[in-house]
Amino acid sequence: MKKPAITRVPVENTIAARWSGRAYDTNKSVSEEQTIALLEAARWAPSCYGDQPWRFIVWDKNKDVASWQKAFETLVEFNQGWVKDSPLLFLIAADTQFHHNGKPNRWAAYDTGAAAENLCLQATALGLMAHQMAGFDADKVRQAFAIPEQIEIIAMISVGYAADVSTLSGEVLERETAPRARRELGELFFSGAWGKPVV
Amino acid sequence: MKKPAITRVPVENTIAARWSGRAYDTNKSVSEEQTIALLEAARWAPSCYGDQPWRFIVWDKNKDVASWQKAFETLVEFNQGWVKDSPLLFLIAADTQFHHNGKPNRWAAYDTGAAAENLCLQATALGLMAHQMAGFDADKVRQAFAIPEQIEIIAMISVGYAADVSTLSGEVLERETAPRARRELGELFFSGAWGKPVV
Repeated sequence: MKKPAITRVPVENTIAARWSGRAYDTNKSVSEEQTIALLEAARWAPSCYGDQPWRFIVWDKNKDVASWQKAFETLVEFNQGWVKDSPLLFLIAADTQFHHNGKPNRWAAYDTGAAAENLCLQATALGLMAHQMAGFDADKVRQAFAIPEQIEIIAMISVGYAADVSTLSGEVLERETAPRARRELGELFFSGAWGKPVV
Repeated sequence: MKKPAITRVPVENTIAARWSGRAYDTNKSVSEEQTIALLEAARWAPSCYGDQPWRFIVWDKNKDVASWQKAFETLVEFNQGWVKDSPLLFLIAADTQFHHNGKPNRWAAYDTGAAAENLCLQATALGLMAHQMAGFDADKVRQAFAIPEQIEIIAMISVGYAADVSTLSGEVLERETAPRARRELGELFFSGAWGKPVV
């Protein structure tokens, strides 16, 4: 299913095409080379002081089902209902201290958001579908994978090939077929002064 | 000047081409249509609960030089040295409270990082160059533009056409011509378990 962004002027194809679907093809795996491409895209995001605070774990159901399952079990029930068909799961986390001086990095989550978006766009460019989630138990992930306290656990991302929406049902199907929506440009973006709509 | 990302496998063209240069062509402005494209790209980023916490101000030197100047003056001296030639400046900020329930949004900065990265990639796709900065006085920006306390001020981004590097000198020139570098994939990304290098 395609749901291109509705924009006043054309935007770059991959940015327009990216969207967070939930219908995954359970029979198609993601190759090692594709996984590396997803990570390379994230790796080359910009960051404050070039710190690269992003840290990801990738769980591949077709390579190590036990670890994938352990990660999967930290998801809330609604997400488990559709992530079950996704071959890849990523943990998106950030080192909260700067590498060069050990001080708190106020931009750790912000920069990690850029890296994760690059991963999602790279997935789109490869014909894959990525979906970010906050619906999981971060404490459980930290414990299950012994993640240091200095690391902020932020999100999980599922990646795989899209399946036909007919593979879904109930609330998941409803969300999949609902139109994408965004606030008006002028609610989010201001011209010259705070609160002055850009258009 | 081009500085494509060095990757093990090919990544999407725009992601590979994006980099944070400092040599701006002071004679070329960015059109209204291009500015809207930059903002549309940001607008269609994903966000937790679809909250769209990102809030930007755009200052266009060719439309309102006084406001642009007021923003410019909050930059640290080193950044002023090269941002002076950039026609557009953006403030990147985030609403720290969810729209639907007024509670703190733990993903506000993370999601705003995705929106800002979309803007930078859209700039690259349009043949423009975007450069993110943390080197400015956030308190001064807040005061000068009466930005509410609920809004987190995160970054500024300059956008414009690239100029020849010969327009630069000193430390700015050195940084412009230095090779781009990133940590090894295996330092940032782990396979199945925390700390286990992906390659």
